[in-house]
Amino acid sequence: MNDRTIRLLISFDGTAYKGWQRQPDAATIQGVLEEKLSLICNEPIVVHGAGRTDAGVHALGMVAHFHTKASHPVATVVRGLNGLLPGDIRIIQADDADPDFHSRFSAVAKTYRYDFFTGRVMDPTRRLYESHFPGFFDSRAVCECLKLLKGRHDFAAFEGTGSRDLTRQGGRGSIRTLLQVNLMPDPKIPLRFSFFLTGDGFLRHMVRNIVGTLITVGRGKMSRAEFTAVLNGRDRRAAGPTAPACGLFLVKIYYDRQELTFPDINT
Amino acid sequence: MNDRTIRLLISFDGTAYKGWQRQPDAATIQGVLEEKLSLICNEPIVVHGAGRTDAGVHALGMVAHFHTKASHPVATVVRGLNGLLPGDIRIIQADDADPDFHSRFSAVAKTYRYDFFTGRVMDPTRRLYESHFPGFFDSRAVCECLKLLKGRHDFAAFEGTGSRDLTRQGGRGSIRTLLQVNLMPDPKIPLRFSFFLTGDGFLRHMVRNIVGTLITVGRGKMSRAEFTAVLNGRDRRAAGPTAPACGLFLVKIYYDRQELTFPDINT
Repeated sequence: MNDRTIRLLISFDGTAYKGWQRQPDAATIQGVLEEKLSLICNEPIVVHGAGRTDAGVHALGMVAHFHTKASHPVATVVRGLNGLLPGDIRIIQADDADPDFHSRFSAVAKTYRYDFFTGRVMDPTRRLYESHFPGFFDSRAVCECLKLLKGRHDFAAFEGTGSRDLTRQGGRGSIRTLLQVNLMPDPKIPLRFSFFLTGDGFLRHMVRNIVGTLITVGRGKMSRAEFTAVLNGRDRRAAGPTAPACGLFLVKIYYDRQELTFPDINT
Repeated sequence: MNDRTIRLLISFDGTAYKGWQRQPDAATIQGVLEEKLSLICNEPIVVHGAGRTDAGVHALGMVAHFHTKASHPVATVVRGLNGLLPGDIRIIQADDADPDFHSRFSAVAKTYRYDFFTGRVMDPTRRLYESHFPGFFDSRAVCECLKLLKGRHDFAAFEGTGSRDLTRQGGRGSIRTLLQVNLMPDPKIPLRFSFFLTGDGFLRHMVRNIVGTLITVGRGKMSRAEFTAVLNGRDRRAAGPTAPACGLFLVKIYYDRQELTFPDINT
């Protein structure tokens, strides 16, 4: 019997990784964390993340937990991990959690941000952290469609092909509730925008498929009526392309429903 | 006789390069630009930059020029180059310049920015674009010393060892004039700051040596009197360490003295 459950708040640059989930022959965030934690705790450690992220997706506030018999103070775990981990994975915080805390099952919502630039020439120092959709972009039309996504919907139209049963936990099928949907222009950099999406769960590729479809709207190649038909039609083939991974950031995992109040600027 | 002088405005992520200047066995910005331009112009092209940048230093607004017999419209040069160049080098603009324009000799001033973070845990998605100086940082003490640098001084104390004659052009020795010196806190991210330095020229490693010395001041390990003695002593060994390259951005090259008016927030 393990005697402690330790919760980690993690930030990572996903550029060099094949996503979160451990794989036998590829660098993944979970794999690297487990390797370093096993050294620190001097026992094999399994890290449970709040969700999987795809290759190239970044995180500002991923949460994970693990069980251990090690008695290190949590500050030592933070310092030890940050000393052993490469600079593209950072531990922001570690806490002793309740024994029944589970980073995935205890989560009540998540916020994702998607950054993109619609200008002609991409800033090369931003190319790994925002997508480039050069050309015409009608942000008002996009906001009109974004509003339609708020609330409880069957998001099957935006579910990635090859979705696993994992995403269908709790018998919800492809029904999810979006609590916050925003498009924010960057206050300093013209033609740069961020989508913010907060929901009680996300299907595989759901954020990137929503973004790809909304970009199609922004380019004037899909009307609001067509967007409504895509959502209601629940057919992935009708939606737009999957937006690139590099613009996507897992911002926050919520464990307390009290925190779930959002000023909705666009809706 | 070449019949055209084309001026380029260039942005690059310096992470993967051994600096600006062409080297036989290393990837450099000048080397890559010359290779691609020679293909586009169908003749060997030499690119002249407004200055050299060190390995890992970034640029938002480097200026360079080249001579060519090719008759392509400048828009074709931009599109062609951006099509051939890797994503970490981007051409923002190309113009036909006066035949006597020279990116280096015609320049009247340059602005550099140096970004750094003083918090405990670095954002991994910023690690290649800002330096990490964790711990105590007394920004008021730094601003007091920064003020002392404004104006015409012998900056020998901040000149990198192994400086070449290049930096001594025009018989100025190590005398330069700083027109703008600022320290700006990031309005959104606590504990993140940027130095802005504009001058009529910079010695080798001058910005990074000034920053390294000012960080020493910010940590409370050098007084204002000691900083003054460093500047006046003109002895490199008395100054602080050279700050890492990754936080440094070449922001702008000025060719028109009319543009040289700066709101000086800290001075």
